[in-house]
Amino acid sequence: MARAMVVRRGHFNAAHRLHNPARSDAWNAEVFGPCNNPNYHGHNYEVELMVEGEIAPDTGYVLDVAVLQPLFDEHVHRILDHRNLNLDVPWFRDRLPSAENIAVFIWEAVAPRIPQGALVRVRLWETPRNYVVYEGR
Amino acid sequence: MARAMVVRRGHFNAAHRLHNPARSDAWNAEVFGPCNNPNYHGHNYEVELMVEGEIAPDTGYVLDVAVLQPLFDEHVHRILDHRNLNLDVPWFRDRLPSAENIAVFIWEAVAPRIPQGALVRVRLWETPRNYVVYEGR
Amino acid sequence: MARAMVVRRGHFNAAHRLHNPARSDAWNAEVFGPCNNPNYHGHNYEVELMVEGEIAPDTGYVLDVAVLQPLFDEHVHRILDHRNLNLDVPWFRDRLPSAENIAVFIWEAVAPRIPQGALVRVRLWETPRNYVVYEGR
Amino acid sequence: MARAMVVRRGHFNAAHRLHNPARSDAWNAEVFGPCNNPNYHGHNYEVELMVEGEIAPDTGYVLDVAVLQPLFDEHVHRILDHRNLNLDVPWFRDRLPSAENIAVFIWEAVAPRIPQGALVRVRLWETPRNYVVYEGR
Amino acid sequence: MARAMVVRRGHFNAAHRLHNPARSDAWNAEVFGPCNNPNYHGHNYEVELMVEGEIAPDTGYVLDVAVLQPLFDEHVHRILDHRNLNLDVPWFRDRLPSAENIAVFIWEAVAPRIPQGALVRVRLWETPRNYVVYEGR
Amino acid sequence: MARAMVVRRGHFNAAHRLHNPARSDAWNAEVFGPCNNPNYHGHNYEVELMVEGEIAPDTGYVLDVAVLQPLFDEHVHRILDHRNLNLDVPWFRDRLPSAENIAVFIWEAVAPRIPQGALVRVRLWETPRNYVVYEGR
Repeated sequence: MARAMVVRRGHFNAAHRLHNPARSDAWNAEVFGPCNNPNYHGHNYEVELMVEGEIAPDTGYVLDVAVLQPLFDEHVHRILDHRNLNLDVPWFRDRLPSAENIAVFIWEAVAPRIPQGALVRVRLWETPRNYVVYEGR
Repeated sequence: MARAMVVRRGHFNAAHRLHNPARSDAWNAEVFGPCNNPNYHGHNYEVELMVEGEIAPDTGYVLDVAVLQPLFDEHVHRILDHRNLNLDVPWFRDRLPSAENIAVFIWEAVAPRIPQGALVRVRLWETPRNYVVYEGR
Repeated sequence: MARAMVVRRGHFNAAHRLHNPARSDAWNAEVFGPCNNPNYHGHNYEVELMVEGEIAPDTGYVLDVAVLQPLFDEHVHRILDHRNLNLDVPWFRDRLPSAENIAVFIWEAVAPRIPQGALVRVRLWETPRNYVVYEGR
Repeated sequence: MARAMVVRRGHFNAAHRLHNPARSDAWNAEVFGPCNNPNYHGHNYEVELMVEGEIAPDTGYVLDVAVLQPLFDEHVHRILDHRNLNLDVPWFRDRLPSAENIAVFIWEAVAPRIPQGALVRVRLWETPRNYVVYEGR
Repeated sequence: MARAMVVRRGHFNAAHRLHNPARSDAWNAEVFGPCNNPNYHGHNYEVELMVEGEIAPDTGYVLDVAVLQPLFDEHVHRILDHRNLNLDVPWFRDRLPSAENIAVFIWEAVAPRIPQGALVRVRLWETPRNYVVYEGR
Repeated sequence: MARAMVVRRGHFNAAHRLHNPARSDAWNAEVFGPCNNPNYHGHNYEVELMVEGEIAPDTGYVLDVAVLQPLFDEHVHRILDHRNLNLDVPWFRDRLPSAENIAVFIWEAVAPRIPQGALVRVRLWETPRNYVVYEGR
């Protein structure tokens, strides 16, 4: 049985601010620099969901895209798009909305809703010049 | 004398919100949809400054990039990058920070600082899927 | 009143074949080469609709995207996406589905449905390595 | 001995249709949606061949590109480009021409023609928004 | 008769150095900075040839690509690719190999070999972050 | 403790020539073809530094970018940008400046300056159509 990885892209736009309330303002200013701006800034985030599995002989598919797309729309795009991650998304109340943590959020939103082990990687571009990869552990 | 157009790219990240305070909340919600989110959202903006002129025989250049780059850094990037356009940039106090108006802002920041008529076009991507072009009139 | 051009991207996938039934098979084979394959081939087409107008002071917009997007979806994407241009799209019954003519089709689908003169350019990529531009005349 | 992976890109355009003749028309319509269009649709496919090996001290190369390029041209591009995958390519007579299976086809075309174990991955974009990865098992 | 513009992309890699021998070393160092490095540096140049004309009813084409591609290969790529523009290309003996002048070279190589007026624009990227446009005057 | 990989892009432009002085001119001409041009050619190199580690709870970062960026600027960009790799960079005196070996150079420049094991991969595009990946062994 041949296995393959299929990758779907998605995107969303959001505002955020990096600020750790447990630390001093001076610490935050030094560590996060302009990302600490109290009035927020924002990004166009691009996402790749990478799913692995056997190629089903009767469809030629690893995973029916009719499953993956609405799942991304409902559990990622609807929650994060055109939002302020710090103020509008409860998951970030206790976590910094860094690219690393946003990738963890997306993993947790998608992985439990498809067959176990199918999601193998989330890639998230914060800008065209930097991205993160999270593999669920 | 051969003329050419030279184009330099720049970029900045910012938060913004589309909201016209002279109109009702209902009007704003209907016209701007998710872009009206009171807590802001954001984008990675990509910019092209398009400058036209004669190719100088002794340099082969239309415009020395040593002129254009610091000008963009000082008068565009320093003002807009990692900012909330609504709250942090005085120019937008009376104007909606739409892509169209941000392109006008960039034009007004750059055009008076290079030879008259040299700036012929500003292109501004708000997302990889939409952009605006402004030609100064 | 400042004017600007706003550009929206769209895309569709289609099969096509270049074959002029008024000419001999030899002529078609020579002129169109592999594009003349009787069983069709296909492309991912990327589209840019370029619309020009005054920036409305109360919205900051040249044209409300809430107008342009459904228009593209209904009159371009729904007709061309996942289609065989030769067999499934009546407009091409008497015209070769070259990139040039597809751009004309898109112009005719969009221009009459937005304010007169607003559509100024259609750009259509047939592959990442070649595209056409049509300006309505 | 340092090892590295070298990646060469290629591309081809093709028409295809997803239809499993062992199933009912209703099943095919539901599973494949617009990809089931009887008249075909098509894509610009982009390919990455990823080859791994030791960096040869006398060339600085993992694999001489003069080997890989003609091999891709002869055994992938010549067979698939400007073709209807369902009708023109015998390999797909018993297999659905999904992106997953096209990646398997490319693997089988390239792997046996370079040193054993050298091909480690095939990446295939069906559109700029989705791709598959196949690693030969 | 509908008119359209068709655009073909090409590319070449080359080394160059910006140095005006009529000026002092100090002038060159100041004006050209690192581009004045006596041992050269280099770029991947990407080219767009933009050709305008009527859409021929019997082909759907503005210009048969079977004309344009070999012309680019013979008169641009063969002369500039994997070359040192200063040392290997006679045209640059008396001209600085700036992006502006390379665009002029390409214009002069292509324009006289296609119908008069057909070439309307040459676009040349020197890096992904800067390009020039030349329209033949 | 969640782990992630963060990726930063950089770039530089350089001239190079592939020539092994221990071999005959005929051997070099045959193996390296146009890359053997005695007067050099050049490329825009794009780099990805891929760094892996635990996501620090107090910053949300795997690695503070304020560490990685100046390190790339000082030990990669300053040494390679606008240089002739054969003549200006001592590291290549005994090694061919192939993409594979340039990736090794970048690895050796970056890996010892960040926590041990943090650098997991260097990706280097020589052109938009080919790249190499080096993982440090």
